[in-house]
Amino acid sequence: MSTEVVLARARIGLLGCGNVGSELVRLLTHQTNGPGLQITRALVRDPSRFRGEGVDVPFTTVTEDLLADRPDVIVELLGGCEPARQLVVDALSRRIPVVTANKSLLARHGRELREAARRHHVPLLYEAAVLAGVPFLGTFARRPLAAGAHALLGIVNGTSNFVLTQCARQGLEPQAALADAQRLGYAEPDPANDIGGLDAAEKLVVLLQHFAGREVALSSVETRGIGDIAQLHHALAAELGGAIKPVITADWTADLRAFAGPAFVPASHPLHGVAGVDNALLLETARGRLLFQGPGAGPLATAATVIDDVHEVVDGVAARPRSSLTPAGSREQKTGWLIALAGRLPSSLEIADYLSAHAIYIRRSTERHSADGREWQGLLTWPCARETVARARHGIEAASGISVGAIRALETLR
Amino acid sequence: MSTEVVLARARIGLLGCGNVGSELVRLLTHQTNGPGLQITRALVRDPSRFRGEGVDVPFTTVTEDLLADRPDVIVELLGGCEPARQLVVDALSRRIPVVTANKSLLARHGRELREAARRHHVPLLYEAAVLAGVPFLGTFARRPLAAGAHALLGIVNGTSNFVLTQCARQGLEPQAALADAQRLGYAEPDPANDIGGLDAAEKLVVLLQHFAGREVALSSVETRGIGDIAQLHHALAAELGGAIKPVITADWTADLRAFAGPAFVPASHPLHGVAGVDNALLLETARGRLLFQGPGAGPLATAATVIDDVHEVVDGVAARPRSSLTPAGSREQKTGWLIALAGRLPSSLEIADYLSAHAIYIRRSTERHSADGREWQGLLTWPCARETVARARHGIEAASGISVGAIRALETLR
Repeated sequence: MSTEVVLARARIGLLGCGNVGSELVRLLTHQTNGPGLQITRALVRDPSRFRGEGVDVPFTTVTEDLLADRPDVIVELLGGCEPARQLVVDALSRRIPVVTANKSLLARHGRELREAARRHHVPLLYEAAVLAGVPFLGTFARRPLAAGAHALLGIVNGTSNFVLTQCARQGLEPQAALADAQRLGYAEPDPANDIGGLDAAEKLVVLLQHFAGREVALSSVETRGIGDIAQLHHALAAELGGAIKPVITADWTADLRAFAGPAFVPASHPLHGVAGVDNALLLETARGRLLFQGPGAGPLATAATVIDDVHEVVDGVAARPRSSLTPAGSREQKTGWLIALAGRLPSSLEIADYLSAHAIYIRRSTERHSADGREWQGLLTWPCARETVARARHGIEAASGISVGAIRALETLR
Repeated sequence: MSTEVVLARARIGLLGCGNVGSELVRLLTHQTNGPGLQITRALVRDPSRFRGEGVDVPFTTVTEDLLADRPDVIVELLGGCEPARQLVVDALSRRIPVVTANKSLLARHGRELREAARRHHVPLLYEAAVLAGVPFLGTFARRPLAAGAHALLGIVNGTSNFVLTQCARQGLEPQAALADAQRLGYAEPDPANDIGGLDAAEKLVVLLQHFAGREVALSSVETRGIGDIAQLHHALAAELGGAIKPVITADWTADLRAFAGPAFVPASHPLHGVAGVDNALLLETARGRLLFQGPGAGPLATAATVIDDVHEVVDGVAARPRSSLTPAGSREQKTGWLIALAGRLPSSLEIADYLSAHAIYIRRSTERHSADGREWQGLLTWPCARETVARARHGIEAASGISVGAIRALETLR
């Protein structure tokens, strides 16, 4: 009589078992390629909560129990900063490789985590932190020439992209589109970080650590939400040959300039077709423009990407931790603006005069519309600073009661 | 007095020093990150040929001289099958890792090369073989879940994409656009493989080895050239809301279906915006659609990608050689067709009757045009086989002297 012991290739300690964690457990349970990855234990707050069919894994509320199993890899899916930060640092200092999808943690404590990983010569992977379903971060981490970008541009928040896409296509206001997103599982119960731009700004900071070699504070990224983008703005954007999208932009050719928020995107721009919950990243390099596009979120896409990170660690092909980064602030990038005017408008000439007195020059404008005693018109300006636009805007609103919306505009790419 | 010896991190033996090889030498000569990669010797046919400024590297015409240096990596940039195949196999059997950009070699002898790499436990990388400037092949080689695609779609030949883009935008005929491409350095002196579709078919075979796990003979890929796409076709395509692009398509959900050639691409399709010498690849996976886009060729993009492959080898993070593939033939995929009719046309009803008698059903059609005693019209059909279309086409041409063009049509993606 013989007892056959089948050993897993690697044993995973799981931190957190919410939507992504549960999906990860299900994916690993149904793996068909023989002995593979095995979850030894999951650290959770409430072991008694039902997490859906097929999520059969030992739970614990005690970190030491998890570490006592001596896992080969720690997968961190807690979200937020604490206790995630402490647990990841502890794991790295015990030389346990860590895979995480936590962009908040990386945006705020990336320096400390990378330091710990480098000091202990152990991999720290986070492919799912940005464009969760599209593998590209690890690729560039191991390819120095490809990684030599000087600017990036992207759509990295699926919830706000879905909301703006629905508003533009279905004529919904943001609140209604958000309710749709929540019903379809595309938005968190508390979507404030998505709608307010913080999630996109965090991802931008992670991308800047990765591609610009700079450590940028979240507070220095110009961040805007999409909550006040109304039907008027979508209609004027369409008339001007584009759409309003939730973008991130950064350029570090010289000083760093970084922005996260809604922008007018012309129809010929590669990001114009990125709709719904899709995400995309455009990298500008000396050797051309690279575009990566695909699902930006969702438990299944995220869990699969996390598992692939674990495979890289186990196969010993993960990129080495990078050298330290330069701290950097961000300056504003001057762009064109979509200015939406609504109310009792003065003549086009008077508007142009007033704006040019503020050094704002009109590049293109829509027809002037009127209905029910209301008038509205959209203008696309040549590049100028937010400060300049804000001053003119306040001046117009104070003097005339006209409502003035201002949304950054991306240039058509050649 | 002390002599300081600075050792390179890795020493490269170069096979071939044409456009890409010369660019590679220049890039490595100007590297600024301290001791890095060093080319010990380049195997060339004619050492006396001038290869441009800054291409200073010892040349040889004798393979044994190159191997006597005991290079850490062999970079193969000869192109074509022999002697490239023999040299790569020799290098692998001496356990020297190989980096190549040679899609012809991989499409025709991929099996033998991968076998040799696996047998000797040595990396064989070829990131530059498809979408030369966009790193993605190595990424998927090390990420099993992401690599689980069931279909792909792409534009992988820059020359033919440039030619069709110029024809559509500038109203040029293919020969004139090709002359432009050659003048701009976007086309080889002998562009027959690009224009005839063979280059795209070779890349498709490499992609199928990679993503479908199948070994497909080049001869079983339905391959068409772009040489007979005329202004008439571009005009009708535009009127039907799309453009004609040089695509590859493959689906292996069940039987493999593979095609390389011109196709009607609707304006809403992600490939519609891929213009000029840009290339793109769309992967269909259970977790969504991934798009990779960027420069598809050019000495600088190709050389940089090859160097990054060498970095992966040297850093020990290259993906392991994959297990063996399944030999597979390819069946035809039924698609819609853009049918371009020109000549003295019968009534629309007669055309529809004739086609439906051949089980071809019209989905949409352009206006009927006439000028200078000529008439023309475009039809988009529902899916049917090439054989079916060919039969109807020959019937019409034989009976009526009408000229009938037929170009595959891609579906709009949702």
